Amino acid sequence: MGQLGPLATGLTGRAVIVTDTNVAPLYADAAVAALAGAGVAADVIDLPAGEASKCLTVYGEVMDRLLALKPAIDRGCLIVALGGGVVGDLAGFVAATALRGLDFINVPTTLLAAVDSSVGGKTGLDAAAGKNLIGAFHQPRAVLIDAATLGTLPAAELGNGLAECVKHGVIRDASLLDLIESSAAAIESADADVLADLIARNVAIKAAVVAADERESGQRAHLNFGHTIGHAIEAAGGFGGLSHGQAVSLGMVAAFSIAVGRKLVSQSDADRVRGILAALSLPVSFADTPSLPGEARQAGHLQEIMAHDKKARGGVVRFILPTSLGSVDIFDDVTADEVAAAVAALG
Amino acid sequence: MGQLGPLATGLTGRAVIVTDTNVAPLYADAAVAALAGAGVAADVIDLPAGEASKCLTVYGEVMDRLLALKPAIDRGCLIVALGGGVVGDLAGFVAATALRGLDFINVPTTLLAAVDSSVGGKTGLDAAAGKNLIGAFHQPRAVLIDAATLGTLPAAELGNGLAECVKHGVIRDASLLDLIESSAAAIESADADVLADLIARNVAIKAAVVAADERESGQRAHLNFGHTIGHAIEAAGGFGGLSHGQAVSLGMVAAFSIAVGRKLVSQSDADRVRGILAALSLPVSFADTPSLPGEARQAGHLQEIMAHDKKARGGVVRFILPTSLGSVDIFDDVTADEVAAAVAALG
Repeated sequence: MGQLGPLATGLTGRAVIVTDTNVAPLYADAAVAALAGAGVAADVIDLPAGEASKCLTVYGEVMDRLLALKPAIDRGCLIVALGGGVVGDLAGFVAATALRGLDFINVPTTLLAAVDSSVGGKTGLDAAAGKNLIGAFHQPRAVLIDAATLGTLPAAELGNGLAECVKHGVIRDASLLDLIESSAAAIESADADVLADLIARNVAIKAAVVAADERESGQRAHLNFGHTIGHAIEAAGGFGGLSHGQAVSLGMVAAFSIAVGRKLVSQSDADRVRGILAALSLPVSFADTPSLPGEARQAGHLQEIMAHDKKARGGVVRFILPTSLGSVDIFDDVTADEVAAAVAALG
Repeated sequence: MGQLGPLATGLTGRAVIVTDTNVAPLYADAAVAALAGAGVAADVIDLPAGEASKCLTVYGEVMDRLLALKPAIDRGCLIVALGGGVVGDLAGFVAATALRGLDFINVPTTLLAAVDSSVGGKTGLDAAAGKNLIGAFHQPRAVLIDAATLGTLPAAELGNGLAECVKHGVIRDASLLDLIESSAAAIESADADVLADLIARNVAIKAAVVAADERESGQRAHLNFGHTIGHAIEAAGGFGGLSHGQAVSLGMVAAFSIAVGRKLVSQSDADRVRGILAALSLPVSFADTPSLPGEARQAGHLQEIMAHDKKARGGVVRFILPTSLGSVDIFDDVTADEVAAAVAALG
């Protein structure tokens, strides 16, 4: 966290830290101290922890608090997002839209935010009609990841990030899978050195994909690997269902199942990835997710959800399937039968 | 309005027209028909007419209606802003932030929106703490001005635009002042040919200023001529006080008064501009604004408001003063005595 001061002082003399009620007691004082040490005065605005905060109502409250600060902020004010994905997305959107645009620094404190949402410049809110439908592309001036903050993460939250790490290995870099495989125990115990290495490699992959396709016209779709069926399982599970990482883990297993059926990859490749997920305590079959309701296990129901996903075009569901360990391709011709077989194979 | 079809068809097959309850009965059908004629399907979303709509609550309602349309919109959807400045600012912000950014076309239906807010890419909302504090820079793909729509404007609304036209002449182009002077009667009767010529010249000036300084670091401040004291009079007048154009007209007269005192311009230049404003039925002294409350005529009160304006830096009030007809400069050293004398000269 100490590096926040030097990063900010080149940009501003005044900052506002946006964080949540879980993260504030842990790291807000350290962030304020780091900024003060570099001569940057900082206010703190905290929002209620949880996905429900990622809405226009809480955005309006944060904006009103920001604009009511005395003395009034000007365009030189820096926003610091300190927290997980919800804080990063909302604070980033605040930065994009306060006084028509302020600089911001993102300080992700979850593994998922560190390796995924903090890279790419997407900011935004959920709307009544769906997730992330309101927002802007607004790149942070810097992303500061302190692996020490990840030691306080609940296991489920760590799992959300690990599922994305496995995804990055599958779509771009087989050697990342080797690293995860050989370090699974150290990763699960949140060893800071191992996590720092893991994060650096994942950020590099995500950044390369995004840099090649910032506005999502082509290969950025590869990042959706495991998310097609995964999102449907997550949505069908409803509240109290699976975490995002758990659902994506099942989605990746299912995508491998389709790919094996098409002879794109071998069964042993599929088994190896399944083993890595299991070693990270992520579910690889419905037997691992006893709380998941019955309809979230039914292919027909999941396919209905997929057809209505915002990424579906004209009802065509797009799949990202592995073509080897470390590469994927886009397929628009996956049949309902193939999906049904893959879901059935989940148990 | 017929040109809307050809403009849109190059961009999209689907559009959503955002308008207000005053403009919709007059022009929404024509806009839908123009789009349909070019093969572009269009929905219409109307918001309550008036400045009070330029807020986060109405923005959220418009966004919910937009995102609830069936079939769901995708990033290829075009937003058409059809109305005055409030509609343009709000619909532009909707376009900037729906699905992280949609194209939009602005169709201003007031003279003020045509010559001022439709040029420059500023979109946004008012916040509890002040006007235009929430927003984004988002350039329209096209601005379509149909001078025929201005024939239905109330006189006060026409005056709001005319004050900005005089401003543009003073800051950049003395020959525009000649045009306004010689055509005042035709302008006041909303002659479409004269207005079309007037609009074209004003858009060119505004666009040149903005293009040279999109993010407001330098000469864009020239556009604030007449607005320093003008904004203060408008704010002090409160609801039921002066229109923006009336207040800016008084502000321009006061700025000339300061400039004459500094021998930047001659008394005859000041008298000429005053005569042009009067010929356009804009107020040039407090005698022309009997409804304005007493405190909005007191220099001390106005100076307090100016010191708290978001454009003031460290309490220093920045003035834009004419240095000849057609050019202005920035002055940070105008004294309280000079302001008091200029306000006193308003009567």
